[in-house]
Amino acid sequence: MINVEKLRQDFPILAQNVNEESLVYLDNAATTQMPDPILQTMKTYYHKDHANVHRGVHTLAQRATEKYETAREKVRQFIHANEIAEVLFTKGTTSSLNWLARSFGDRFINEGDEIVLSYMEHHSNIVPWQQLAKRKKAVLKYISLTEDGFLDMEDARRQITEKTAIVAIAHASNVLGVINPIAELTELVHKHQGVIVVDGAQAVPHMPVNVKELDVDFYAFSGHKMLGPTGIGVLYGKRYWLEQMEPVEFGGEMIDFVYLQESTWAELPWKFEAGTPNIAGGIGLGSAIGYLNEISLEEIYHHEKELIHYVLPRLEAIEGLTVYGPSEPVDHTGVIAFNLDGLHPHDLATALDMQGVAVRAGHHCAQPLLNYLDTMATARASFYLYNTKDDADRLIESIKEAKEFFRHGSF
Amino acid sequence: MINVEKLRQDFPILAQNVNEESLVYLDNAATTQMPDPILQTMKTYYHKDHANVHRGVHTLAQRATEKYETAREKVRQFIHANEIAEVLFTKGTTSSLNWLARSFGDRFINEGDEIVLSYMEHHSNIVPWQQLAKRKKAVLKYISLTEDGFLDMEDARRQITEKTAIVAIAHASNVLGVINPIAELTELVHKHQGVIVVDGAQAVPHMPVNVKELDVDFYAFSGHKMLGPTGIGVLYGKRYWLEQMEPVEFGGEMIDFVYLQESTWAELPWKFEAGTPNIAGGIGLGSAIGYLNEISLEEIYHHEKELIHYVLPRLEAIEGLTVYGPSEPVDHTGVIAFNLDGLHPHDLATALDMQGVAVRAGHHCAQPLLNYLDTMATARASFYLYNTKDDADRLIESIKEAKEFFRHGSF
Repeated sequence: MINVEKLRQDFPILAQNVNEESLVYLDNAATTQMPDPILQTMKTYYHKDHANVHRGVHTLAQRATEKYETAREKVRQFIHANEIAEVLFTKGTTSSLNWLARSFGDRFINEGDEIVLSYMEHHSNIVPWQQLAKRKKAVLKYISLTEDGFLDMEDARRQITEKTAIVAIAHASNVLGVINPIAELTELVHKHQGVIVVDGAQAVPHMPVNVKELDVDFYAFSGHKMLGPTGIGVLYGKRYWLEQMEPVEFGGEMIDFVYLQESTWAELPWKFEAGTPNIAGGIGLGSAIGYLNEISLEEIYHHEKELIHYVLPRLEAIEGLTVYGPSEPVDHTGVIAFNLDGLHPHDLATALDMQGVAVRAGHHCAQPLLNYLDTMATARASFYLYNTKDDADRLIESIKEAKEFFRHGSF
Repeated sequence: MINVEKLRQDFPILAQNVNEESLVYLDNAATTQMPDPILQTMKTYYHKDHANVHRGVHTLAQRATEKYETAREKVRQFIHANEIAEVLFTKGTTSSLNWLARSFGDRFINEGDEIVLSYMEHHSNIVPWQQLAKRKKAVLKYISLTEDGFLDMEDARRQITEKTAIVAIAHASNVLGVINPIAELTELVHKHQGVIVVDGAQAVPHMPVNVKELDVDFYAFSGHKMLGPTGIGVLYGKRYWLEQMEPVEFGGEMIDFVYLQESTWAELPWKFEAGTPNIAGGIGLGSAIGYLNEISLEEIYHHEKELIHYVLPRLEAIEGLTVYGPSEPVDHTGVIAFNLDGLHPHDLATALDMQGVAVRAGHHCAQPLLNYLDTMATARASFYLYNTKDDADRLIESIKEAKEFFRHGSF
């Protein structure tokens, strides 16, 4: 079991008052908070070892390179990739998916090829594919959802065919709180000689992920949603594909030789990493992985599950409140989107903020999903390892208060 | 005058021993060190305000957004851009130049158009244009240099013609230590209806830069070369062009509406910034600008000039040592590339590192330039605001020691 009280000492940001109430931070699907040991790691790096990587013979440059590449090895172990050649550092999930759509797409997608997404995708896993489809005259298709917000696997089996070149899908939804059956999908996609791309931004921070076991071709995630710093993310790809792909950005670090009219590329993974990387960010991400490992992803998963079992029925019991996605806690992740009858989610979120409870409101970068759900926006609470049942109680109470307030006009 | 002794207290990294000698850090053209007040700003951000930006109504999200956008305004003032719409945050100079080659290039470059670079460009300002030329069947041309390593303006006047679509050029060389006459070039380029792109990575940290006065169309630079954190940079562009350009990355933050088959974009500058940005990085860069402003770029420029006047003649006086670029200190920036007869620059840099002096050795991501100079590699010392005449003395002494060592086989 996680000792949350002790753990929260690493997160001074959580110990503050907001609008004269103690902060309850429930916006973890947008970004998670960074514990002090990670900040300390980055500080130590800047205090002792900071230099540009890969190109230097002096001591600091060697130390910086070693720290940065050690972080890459930590990522490799964390997701169980075969080799560091398959672990590319990017700016974040969005860059990872854009690189893919550009590099894999330009090389392998032809007119009439089908790219299959689902209705629950984040804009980052939609718009790059729209653009690719436009460039290549490819066809974009969407797998529908069940009543309960699950991916409709029957529809998936209809839509994924010999024409399917790419299936790009979230591992866990950032709105519905469902986990998609990636291994099953992968088998289906591979049976039809397609390639599967997984947006793991909402999964990697919350449960053990093994890209080798899942057998996915590509997997993307962000550091800042897993206790790490902003500006760093990962694209995992099978060597088989990465070797055949062209880099997306060009410049220092990623070249072998540059002549006046042409150039050759470095080995994987550096072939894809042009320019000075986010060195401190990479090292910070490595440190975040160490922190998560020490607690263990299994423990984190169970902690969140326990919170969901506690909070979901209490939310559903509020009259006039609609929870999106599965109604059973066992099927729901720590991301809970909801609406209160007659109240715009922005007003609801503002009312919660007045009581110190931070939730998000809006379309959550998933407009096609919200259209599909026939709503313009929702409020969304999202839990993480440092949240408690007290936080859940505060959420419930503050929603009830908000409801009263908007009914009667006063707290 | 800069009080270097006082200022160095902000840089604990400089106060360490390397190989049992006090560190002399002369690799500032690769990356500069980050002073503690900037680290403190980032720490405060993570301790008090960290949240995802732009999309949140809760207090932390509002504070994070305000801090991030205040940093953008600081950048705008720093380079004297007209409006924040013209200031895009990127991962660094390399990303900035790649975005340009992709977005401006795909929109405006046609078969037979000429792209003019110079022989002194960094790979980041060569390879993206090579790739663009390849995609569009455009022609890549190089402006030659004078004997002393200056841009040959006579050749520039020959090469820049009505056929010239883009001139992409460094403001300051990362090897030769020259500053290019950007205002003069801009006039020349604009006379022929071309567009000028400036790689300012080696200029912005070292002298006042005013993009409006220079009248350049695009200007790129990096945070980590101006006391800021890694993973953040800037692309300045005139609104006239940015409005006509398509984004390079697609996803959250940069959209207006996303439908199943198409999407529309947000306003400038956010149109170009897909996904969660490097929030702490942007805030750190804003803080670095504040730090530089407090000292003043004029002071920094003069401080470096004084060091160059001190060190350059002493370097040139070492028998068998070749300095690349202008021989007169008045013409030279704080970047000094050199070679010692009969000694590979890697061995030289290693010998200096043994004496605590950190310089770079290699091709400095400028292989075409080194070919042009008829050498495979050079050593390079690069100075910044925290360097002293003592550092210069240590450089000179350690080169002399290295020379002795390799002649006699012992220190």
